[in-house]
Amino acid sequence: MEVYFDNSATTIPYDEVIESVAFAMKNYFANPSSAYKIGMNAERELGSYRDFLASTINATKDELIFTSGGSESNNFLINGFLSPGDNIITTKIEHPSVLNTFKALEALGIETTYINVDSDGKVILDELEAAINNKTKLVSVMHVNNEIGTIQDIDTIGNIVKSKSQKAKFHVDAVQSYGKIDINVKKANIDLLSTSAHKIHGPRGVGFAYIKKGLVPKALIYGGGQEKDFRSGTENLAGAAGFHKAASIIFPNLKQNYKHVTEVKKHFIDGLQNFKDIKINSPLDSNHSPYILNVSFYGLRGEVLLHLLEENSIYVSTGSACSSKNTRGSHVLRAIGLKNDAVEGGMRFSFCEMNTTEQVDYVLSALEKSIKFLRRK
Amino acid sequence: MEVYFDNSATTIPYDEVIESVAFAMKNYFANPSSAYKIGMNAERELGSYRDFLASTINATKDELIFTSGGSESNNFLINGFLSPGDNIITTKIEHPSVLNTFKALEALGIETTYINVDSDGKVILDELEAAINNKTKLVSVMHVNNEIGTIQDIDTIGNIVKSKSQKAKFHVDAVQSYGKIDINVKKANIDLLSTSAHKIHGPRGVGFAYIKKGLVPKALIYGGGQEKDFRSGTENLAGAAGFHKAASIIFPNLKQNYKHVTEVKKHFIDGLQNFKDIKINSPLDSNHSPYILNVSFYGLRGEVLLHLLEENSIYVSTGSACSSKNTRGSHVLRAIGLKNDAVEGGMRFSFCEMNTTEQVDYVLSALEKSIKFLRRK
Repeated sequence: MEVYFDNSATTIPYDEVIESVAFAMKNYFANPSSAYKIGMNAERELGSYRDFLASTINATKDELIFTSGGSESNNFLINGFLSPGDNIITTKIEHPSVLNTFKALEALGIETTYINVDSDGKVILDELEAAINNKTKLVSVMHVNNEIGTIQDIDTIGNIVKSKSQKAKFHVDAVQSYGKIDINVKKANIDLLSTSAHKIHGPRGVGFAYIKKGLVPKALIYGGGQEKDFRSGTENLAGAAGFHKAASIIFPNLKQNYKHVTEVKKHFIDGLQNFKDIKINSPLDSNHSPYILNVSFYGLRGEVLLHLLEENSIYVSTGSACSSKNTRGSHVLRAIGLKNDAVEGGMRFSFCEMNTTEQVDYVLSALEKSIKFLRRK
Repeated sequence: MEVYFDNSATTIPYDEVIESVAFAMKNYFANPSSAYKIGMNAERELGSYRDFLASTINATKDELIFTSGGSESNNFLINGFLSPGDNIITTKIEHPSVLNTFKALEALGIETTYINVDSDGKVILDELEAAINNKTKLVSVMHVNNEIGTIQDIDTIGNIVKSKSQKAKFHVDAVQSYGKIDINVKKANIDLLSTSAHKIHGPRGVGFAYIKKGLVPKALIYGGGQEKDFRSGTENLAGAAGFHKAASIIFPNLKQNYKHVTEVKKHFIDGLQNFKDIKINSPLDSNHSPYILNVSFYGLRGEVLLHLLEENSIYVSTGSACSSKNTRGSHVLRAIGLKNDAVEGGMRFSFCEMNTTEQVDYVLSALEKSIKFLRRK
């Protein structure tokens, strides 16, 4: 059996997505910025993708800009409104594309504030509220954490931001929640939002940035003025086609998928009851996404366990994919208060709707054998 | 007959490219940054694309960074080394992704210099040499102009830059020359170079940035540290696969293709000898790429002619695709000294190796009829 439990790193593209990318490359090759018919056909096609994708977050198509993915969207939207002396706020458990953008902005004279989270990974709302001042131009909070799956209450956070400041924009990194948990940008007072296609079985290299109507961020990529001058570069229509296809498959099944992966995660956690010296960092509760199960195996090193599982054709992560090759240990697990041994033994199993409880049984059995072997002395 | 003469805007992807994108999406879906086998297989595959693409410009694979395309590469590389007070130099006929990046940098306290070109579009070398001073950090010159096809002598320009300054980096926008004209980054003293896949029948949304070994530009997109920390975001492996495939088809045929499109362009220019009141802005000579033919039809508006040709299923541009919807008129045609009537009547025919002299005959005949109709009064 082969088990891919690393869906928060990337997902297996749907066959229909691959077909739609190939179809668009063949049939809509023309430059959407061209003045002639086949260019305008391509532009209309792109508009239909934009229209549908916007509808999935209760936005309109003029509020949606295609980008090369989640990292670009985060960089672009965070940079969009800043001048030296401004304050920007985020949390201690954000994705590196947010945290490293903040770090780079510090060098440009932007003041940054990092809000703590509790042991569940939930943002300390009082601390956030107190941090917003009249210099604050942006509050950036990720909807679902990529390592431990914590779901932030973005409706409440949006309310806090808007009640404390007229100027502060509310940015949500929705890369891990989009297509999995309902997002309503209007209801949550979201000004800016980032997504990525390849986390929902879409193609790599494409995502979107939601920009609330009326807001005018400065571009990150200047040029020919595509995407309403917010994001230049010849439009990646085939990528957008694949993103559209993935979303059109996943959104009608959002609730059903959620229920299914909840069963998968529950089955996994039930099976872990027999394991000793472990800590579940993302319990099955309303604060955590069912798509992510993070477990610390005390006394073991995540990397070692990962490779033993791999020998059984089981693919998982320690921390996030992007930091899986560094050894400093997860900033997220540290932020929720875990000590060295729990951080070092941390492992992330992340699911999609195609995973099954049979796969979980297989992984549990491989885990049991691997741990027994590693703890043999 | 259907004739696509807008290959400088974008090209029709090779069937093999479409297949390779689909194949990579299916078979190398894993995140190349993952620690397990299928992730490392994906990383190795990406490395093999990088290796080949680097070899096409006489670079090594550690000098090549994948990006989302030409515009991102230009923005990234131009921004890479600057602090307020620096001087940067470019020409008056660059692509908007260079010119608008320069403009944005002016607002950040960077001093910019725009070098004039002669009536062929060639950079005035004395003016360039005189402009380089000890504050100059970057000289950015496009290899082949996207509107009139002027080929800059990048070997000579590279020499000038390096003989005048130890600090100034030499950046080449090679989007229109890559895969069509030989580029040797060592020979031309190039420090930084931008390319795009979709101009050579590759996929949209992917390109590369060449960064000479030892240089450390700051990132444009921060995040998980992919691409040696120069360009974060999950690697678009399928895009890179398609780019690799396109390059591996086009490079062995580079000289043959060049000869073929030279015949096509010659046939076109020969046919235009019978046309009155026209001006060829990109003659068939060593200063101009055979891939681009720019003609001014006096007394006509390019947009109007474009739509008449379109009725005959002929697809061409006025100016560049990215500016084809604006009406200010080409900055390139103005820079080579054309007056309003020649600018307004400007039209670009751009070729690829799949175009034929039969297509040219068909276009000439449609042009003749269209012009007769437009000049009927």
